Amino acid sequence: MNIIYINEKLLPSDQALLSVDERGFRFGDGVFETIALHGGVPYLLHYHLERLQAGLQAIHIPAPVSLDEILREVIAANKAKDGIIRIYVSRGIGSQGYLPTATTPTIVVQWLQPAVKADAAVKLWLSSVEKISPRALPTHAKLAQGLNATLARMQAREQGCHDALQLDAKGHISEASSANIFWVKQGKLFTPALTTGALAGVTRRRIMELAGDVSEAEATPEALQQAEEVFLTNASTGITAVATLLPLNYTWNGSNITGQLIEKREADIRAQTAKS
Amino acid sequence: MNIIYINEKLLPSDQALLSVDERGFRFGDGVFETIALHGGVPYLLHYHLERLQAGLQAIHIPAPVSLDEILREVIAANKAKDGIIRIYVSRGIGSQGYLPTATTPTIVVQWLQPAVKADAAVKLWLSSVEKISPRALPTHAKLAQGLNATLARMQAREQGCHDALQLDAKGHISEASSANIFWVKQGKLFTPALTTGALAGVTRRRIMELAGDVSEAEATPEALQQAEEVFLTNASTGITAVATLLPLNYTWNGSNITGQLIEKREADIRAQTAKS
Repeated sequence: MNIIYINEKLLPSDQALLSVDERGFRFGDGVFETIALHGGVPYLLHYHLERLQAGLQAIHIPAPVSLDEILREVIAANKAKDGIIRIYVSRGIGSQGYLPTATTPTIVVQWLQPAVKADAAVKLWLSSVEKISPRALPTHAKLAQGLNATLARMQAREQGCHDALQLDAKGHISEASSANIFWVKQGKLFTPALTTGALAGVTRRRIMELAGDVSEAEATPEALQQAEEVFLTNASTGITAVATLLPLNYTWNGSNITGQLIEKREADIRAQTAKS
Repeated sequence: MNIIYINEKLLPSDQALLSVDERGFRFGDGVFETIALHGGVPYLLHYHLERLQAGLQAIHIPAPVSLDEILREVIAANKAKDGIIRIYVSRGIGSQGYLPTATTPTIVVQWLQPAVKADAAVKLWLSSVEKISPRALPTHAKLAQGLNATLARMQAREQGCHDALQLDAKGHISEASSANIFWVKQGKLFTPALTTGALAGVTRRRIMELAGDVSEAEATPEALQQAEEVFLTNASTGITAVATLLPLNYTWNGSNITGQLIEKREADIRAQTAKS
């Protein structure tokens, strides 16, 4: 049985329990991170902790101290080598309604199974579920407000697709339900700007560094029609090539730049793992 | 200590605990109702259960059977007379990511303290936190996605106001962070249309029935400048008159129609309580 960190204790999962009054449960009032683990080393940990802090600040939850120490304890207690480390900081218990009273954040750190990586280029469904606007929520952060992504993804699966492509209110490409998106056009890389409601993805950030020259765009799906390659990125499954966008029937065969980026990222993981 | 219904059991609150893997906690993946209790009778219960079912359907959670039976058990176990009954149905445990696997919904029914009612007409703050679009989420339902309302309300409180007035992406009045809004203009009642992202409030619905002639509007805040009266409605605190909208400095003194509606609603509550 997994050992879970919950509010200053390491507990077996059947004892890691929460009050029904917890604001994470009641309102999804918190932020989280899912961090890939390679050989016991959390990949891009510093970027994840940086984004977590930015998210906590954006929703006015006092930042907890020394999360990397807690992470090390969870990894050691589970003898975890691969998979995912999930950090969740919610606002805690306090007040019945939306306005929080003085609360102590609830911190949960747990080791999860590796996400299943698609073994071939995937199909995307152009979703009717609009992305939430950054004027309504700090969408750059990984908020525990997962219903928008859940609904888009369920719709995509009903259509036989791996994931959904979601647009903002202006019809600009934002991201997939649980991944950032990139496309290659005339050999140049593009990804939606955060103004479209896209997450400030850690893998997105690293790919932009590894690729060197990426344009942040506000583009409609038509921009993808002439693209040579399209791929998704997230922390759990890395880089995933896209084959088709339905129902538009756009298709992509190229995997030249995508393949080079996958190789660069794998070397990056090996280098970080060796260092730690 | 309160007795809480959780997944087919009635338990003291310190034993009513949840797994950290619960999707309500992880993603706010559920819908809830807060129902006013008067003399042991839940007011407008049928409307609340109707909205809950509509919300469950909108987010594809299989509807649980016979919630009113569970409600009666919780009221009896707590010998509850007044206050609030909160029903929460979340998607339950299953899958790490957004895409749910087969899940059994988690049902929590609890008795909460009455909400504090303002003892005078209140101040509203015109919020910079935009309402979430009904194209992004089924906003007519009471979703456990409470962060947008929480951020707006925190901002209003910082400005010394009771609640926030939130607009949609087009600048139309939507609602307060936790209440619907009405205004009176030339003796006629207006309230924002649900296309603005406003909740299909149970008290909103009942006020529309009691008032008889209410227009659902897409209106900018300027529409409030010439209004004779402005008031808020929600299930927990009923009808609350608004005195001021800051920072625009619009003010309202009238309480003629608001007062009549408060009286009608109180008679409505007395009639329902006597019936049960």
